[in-house]
Amino acid sequence: MAPTAAAVKQPQHTAKAVGLAALDASGHLAPLTITRRSTGDDDVAIKILYCGVCHSDLHSIKNEWHNTTYPIVPGHEIAGVVTEVGKKVTKFKPGDRVGVGCMVNSCRSCDLCAAGFENHCGGIVFTYNSVDPTDGSITLGGYSTAVVVHERFVVRFPDTVPLDRGAPLLCAGVTVYSPMKQHGLDAPGKRVGVVGLGGLGHVAVKFARAFGAKVTVISSSPEKREEALERLGADAFVVSRDAGEMEAAAGSLDGIINTVSANVPVAPFMALLKPNGKMIMVGLPDKALEVPPFDLIMGNKTLAGSCIGGMRDTQEMLDLAAEHGVTADVEVIGADYVNTAMERLAKADVRYRFVIDIGNTLKNSSE
Amino acid sequence: MAPTAAAVKQPQHTAKAVGLAALDASGHLAPLTITRRSTGDDDVAIKILYCGVCHSDLHSIKNEWHNTTYPIVPGHEIAGVVTEVGKKVTKFKPGDRVGVGCMVNSCRSCDLCAAGFENHCGGIVFTYNSVDPTDGSITLGGYSTAVVVHERFVVRFPDTVPLDRGAPLLCAGVTVYSPMKQHGLDAPGKRVGVVGLGGLGHVAVKFARAFGAKVTVISSSPEKREEALERLGADAFVVSRDAGEMEAAAGSLDGIINTVSANVPVAPFMALLKPNGKMIMVGLPDKALEVPPFDLIMGNKTLAGSCIGGMRDTQEMLDLAAEHGVTADVEVIGADYVNTAMERLAKADVRYRFVIDIGNTLKNSSE
Repeated sequence: MAPTAAAVKQPQHTAKAVGLAALDASGHLAPLTITRRSTGDDDVAIKILYCGVCHSDLHSIKNEWHNTTYPIVPGHEIAGVVTEVGKKVTKFKPGDRVGVGCMVNSCRSCDLCAAGFENHCGGIVFTYNSVDPTDGSITLGGYSTAVVVHERFVVRFPDTVPLDRGAPLLCAGVTVYSPMKQHGLDAPGKRVGVVGLGGLGHVAVKFARAFGAKVTVISSSPEKREEALERLGADAFVVSRDAGEMEAAAGSLDGIINTVSANVPVAPFMALLKPNGKMIMVGLPDKALEVPPFDLIMGNKTLAGSCIGGMRDTQEMLDLAAEHGVTADVEVIGADYVNTAMERLAKADVRYRFVIDIGNTLKNSSE
Repeated sequence: MAPTAAAVKQPQHTAKAVGLAALDASGHLAPLTITRRSTGDDDVAIKILYCGVCHSDLHSIKNEWHNTTYPIVPGHEIAGVVTEVGKKVTKFKPGDRVGVGCMVNSCRSCDLCAAGFENHCGGIVFTYNSVDPTDGSITLGGYSTAVVVHERFVVRFPDTVPLDRGAPLLCAGVTVYSPMKQHGLDAPGKRVGVVGLGGLGHVAVKFARAFGAKVTVISSSPEKREEALERLGADAFVVSRDAGEMEAAAGSLDGIINTVSANVPVAPFMALLKPNGKMIMVGLPDKALEVPPFDLIMGNKTLAGSCIGGMRDTQEMLDLAAEHGVTADVEVIGADYVNTAMERLAKADVRYRFVIDIGNTLKNSSE
C-alpha cells in the first residue's frame, strides 16, 4: 500500500515515514505520510517490520475512550531493526533486532522510574495518542514504517524470538508477565489460574508455565477445554458457568490473572483462591467490580490491578520468552487487511493476535 | 460478682471456672460456672486477669452472625498469669505473664500453619463459640477466670507491656500489625493511612508509627483532628467528607489500613494511594465493596483483606509494642459493668477499648 492522504507536519521532524492512520472516529485506517524526529543523542531509529494489533488500538481509533487526537496512528507492539543510533546510545547498534511497547518516554528521574515502574511515572509518554513533551507533537504508533525512540524504551529481541510472533509480547506479554512477577506468582510449583483465553490469556498460560507454575484455565466456553489442555499445555480447565467445576476448584489457586474485560462478577473467581491468594485484573471492565468484604478478609485475599509493566520487566519477559520458547499465537496480515482485521477483532474472531507485516506490505512513498 | 446460673457440663473437663455467659440472643451476660479441661501435656493453664471487649463479642452474644451456640462466654483478648503447664511445655512456666488471642488451636501440621498462618488453617479453633475437636466441647472465651490452651496459641507478654492496656493488642493489635507487615508497610519512611479512628484505628496509628511510617489519619469526623495529631502523634489528618482535603492527599500513600466496618465507599480511599499502593480492609462491612477497575489497574493498586494474624505475628507484635511503648487506650471496667459496656460499645461510646478487670471483679464461687 502507498500513502494517499496528505502529510502531517510536525515541528523539528526531519524523517518521513508512512503510517496507517485513522482521520476520524470511523476508525478507518489508510496510509498517511508522517514525520519522525531526527535521531537524538539518546535515540534509536527503528525500521519497523511487524506490529501487533491490540484491542486498545481498536478502542483508540474509534475514540471509545474519548481522548483520541486525529489523525491517529495506533500500534504499540513494535518489532523491527535498528537503522541508526544517537551518539550517546550504548545499548544498541544498527542491525540489532529490537522492540518497542506501550511507552516511548517518561520523566526518567522519579522514584517510580528508578524502581522500574516507568509505566506509572506521571511523565509517561505513550507510544501513540500522547503528547511528546520534547517537541509538542502527538506520538504516532507502530502501524508505520519507522519510529525514533529514546533507548531506555527500546528492548532487545533475543535471537531465538521471532519478530512476528514476538511483537505481541511487547504489550500482551508484559501485561501478564509483570503482575505474575510483582505478586510473587513466578515461583515453580505455584498454582496459577488464568481467566479468559484470548490475546492476553493464551500468553498468560505460556508465561505461567515458563515460571514453572501449575496452570488452571478458567473460561466460560467449554469448547476451549481441548485448546487449553492439549495445545497450550494447561494442567486443568474449569468452566466458569459450571457450579460443580467451580466448587471443586475452590481454594486451589495461589493467584489468578483475570484477562476478561467484560462485566463478569469477580467474586466466584476470588473463591478459587487459597488463603493469601491474589487475583490480578489486567482486563478492564467498564463497571465497578463488586467484592464481598467477607470473602476478601477471611482468607487474607487480594484483588489487584496491573497495567502493562516497566522496561526492566519488559526485557526480562523477552529473555524468559527466549529461554522457554514462548511466543504469541498470531495471524500475520498485510497492511491492506487491517480494516478487516479490526472488524474481526471486534468480534473476537482471531486466534489470538493479528500482527501486521509492515516490512513487506507498507511502503514509504519513495520505495 | 458470683455465679448464679447452673454449671455447664462438658466431658473430660475437671477444672471449674466462672465465666460471663449469655444464654440467649438477648446477649445479657451473667456469671456462670463453667468447666475447663485438665492441663494436657502441651497445655498451659492460665489465671485470667484482664480481657478486652471486642466488637465481635457484641455480635456474637446477640447472634448477629447467626452462628452462636448458647451458652456463650465471649472474649478473645486475654491477659493473665500461668498457673500450671503440661509436661511437654517448654516455652512457659507458672508465673509467666501471657496472652491468648482469637484462636486456641489449629491442625498445626498444614502448609498454612507451617508458614505462620494458623489464622487461615482449615482446622482453626476459635477462642469461643467454636467446636474443640479434642473433646467436642464448645470453646468458651476470656470473660472468665481461667482457661487452658495449647502452648502454641499462648504468647508471652514482655515485662514492660501492662496486662490491662496490652490485652486488646491480642486481637485489635495483631489485626492491624499483621497486614502492615504482610503487605510491606513495615519499613521506615512509608506513608501509611489509617481510615477510622476507633478500637482498631488508634492502635493502627501507634503501630504504623512504631514501624517508622508517616501516618495520615482519614476520618469522617473533623473533631478527631486534634486527637489524631496531638495525642496519637499522626503526621496528617484528612476529613474524608472534605473533597478539597481528599484531593490534596490524592496519590500520597503507600498503604492504607481501612478499619471501617460501615458501608462506606472505598474508591475515594483508593485514590489516596500512590501507584503500587495497597489498601487492606480489616473492618468488615456487610455490603459488597465497589471498586472501579480503571482505578485499580492504572496504578497497579491493590485492595486486600486481612483477618487477625498468625501466632508468629502475634508474638512479634507484642515484642514491637514493648520496644516502642505501644498499648491500647482502654477503659478498665468491673465484671458487673459488662452489660452497660456492651450498650455503650454499640454506640461507639468508648475511647477506645473496654477491658474487664477479671482478676479483681470476677470470682470463682469457692473464693
